[in-house]
Amino acid sequence: MQIALTIAGSDSGGGAGIQADLKTFQHFGVFGTSVITAITAQNTLGVSAVHPVPIGVVEAQLAALAADLPPAAVKTGMLATAPLVTAIAAALGRGGFGPYVLDPVMVATSGDRLLDADAEREVRNRLVPLAAVVTPNLDEAAILTGVAVTDVASMERAGHALLQLGARAALIKGGHLPGETLTDVLVTRTGSRHFVHRRIPTRSTHGTGCTLSAAITAGLAIRHGAGGLPDIETVVGEALDYLHRAIATAPGLGHGHGPVNHAAS
Amino acid sequence: MQIALTIAGSDSGGGAGIQADLKTFQHFGVFGTSVITAITAQNTLGVSAVHPVPIGVVEAQLAALAADLPPAAVKTGMLATAPLVTAIAAALGRGGFGPYVLDPVMVATSGDRLLDADAEREVRNRLVPLAAVVTPNLDEAAILTGVAVTDVASMERAGHALLQLGARAALIKGGHLPGETLTDVLVTRTGSRHFVHRRIPTRSTHGTGCTLSAAITAGLAIRHGAGGLPDIETVVGEALDYLHRAIATAPGLGHGHGPVNHAAS
Repeated sequence: MQIALTIAGSDSGGGAGIQADLKTFQHFGVFGTSVITAITAQNTLGVSAVHPVPIGVVEAQLAALAADLPPAAVKTGMLATAPLVTAIAAALGRGGFGPYVLDPVMVATSGDRLLDADAEREVRNRLVPLAAVVTPNLDEAAILTGVAVTDVASMERAGHALLQLGARAALIKGGHLPGETLTDVLVTRTGSRHFVHRRIPTRSTHGTGCTLSAAITAGLAIRHGAGGLPDIETVVGEALDYLHRAIATAPGLGHGHGPVNHAAS
Repeated sequence: MQIALTIAGSDSGGGAGIQADLKTFQHFGVFGTSVITAITAQNTLGVSAVHPVPIGVVEAQLAALAADLPPAAVKTGMLATAPLVTAIAAALGRGGFGPYVLDPVMVATSGDRLLDADAEREVRNRLVPLAAVVTPNLDEAAILTGVAVTDVASMERAGHALLQLGARAALIKGGHLPGETLTDVLVTRTGSRHFVHRRIPTRSTHGTGCTLSAAITAGLAIRHGAGGLPDIETVVGEALDYLHRAIATAPGLGHGHGPVNHAAS
């Protein structure tokens, strides 16, 4: 059984953060471990409290896993502060964690910036170069690259800019563009691929970014852990199809933006 | 889809705490939510750091779930301090959380007491009377009841003492008694039942108590949420059989006491 690690915040509502990641890992048959960076009190309507975990406790969690339960793949989600990003980059840079999926959580659905400028710079300079794949939405791609990302052509440009910054692949998520279909663009050293899905009219979009990056991490853990060469196109394609099914079969919980169905088969 | 809530500590290693609970909930097809009471850095060899979550942040998590994602059943695990027990008892006492499973985590595998005397008293006086079922091991049953619990007959006596303290049912776990078989004793208002399983020679016992109480919670959530009368004997029997399979098919991760297989079918 392969191990996958998530480094992220905790969502009490169970639809995002480490909870979404652990559920997704389990769906793919991977054993999930977690390093919690912040505790949030939240439900489908919003966040009512955030408690950052002291950096020493984050480092202790990372050390406990590196020593005894090294993952076959790892992802990061909400990281909050520049010192925390620096500490996590240092740990990942020491190796032993497998391929790394960077979900650069920077902008809330409301449009609010979640990281200060120092933390954004640390993500760009320290984490992007470590990433097997980075999975920004349009706003995050723009912040990381300086490219104004407004259509598929500029998504391609932003993806190439992320490769210039050191990522081995970039998946630019197009869900925020209008249209009946939505297009996600994967850029790798060998070219790019567009994944097109029918848009599902739904309010169940809480934690979709977490779930997608966790599904990619699970796919990498299975292939990397088994000694094979992860085919990033295949892994990303399977993860996007899973997310599409998870949204389509969402259980409709809560009064706001509800969680997806992490057990979608 | 029914919701089940765990109120417990976080285990970075993924085998116990809210991680074990969420994995177990998912296995039973229940949507898991969580209120984190403490962050631990741990692996299969031990605990290297504990960070208690401020009570206000615990209360904010409880309030966020009560308002928008009320569970069909709830469990508590590691609670750490008397004020935390008091706060959680107050929240559960206000109702709306469904049947309550109390896993009275008090004694580490090493034999160390995990709660101080004040917290133990709050568990006995405030939480036991709220419990649909309380699931102590031998040491915890002795602490809660004052009965010296050393064999099946005294397990029965301790179970009845827990009913006197207000619990609607008590499952006394006999795993720490010697012998080729192990016996767990369920005491209810209508009598008692002994569940006997073959002992599995294994080191994969990390999180077995969490996993068992989570499986009971999931069973109660499914039955209570569907409007049926939970049959505690059936729910406990299914949970114990699941745990037996989860131990028998443990993935053998880590160098110490490894996790069970939460996806055991």
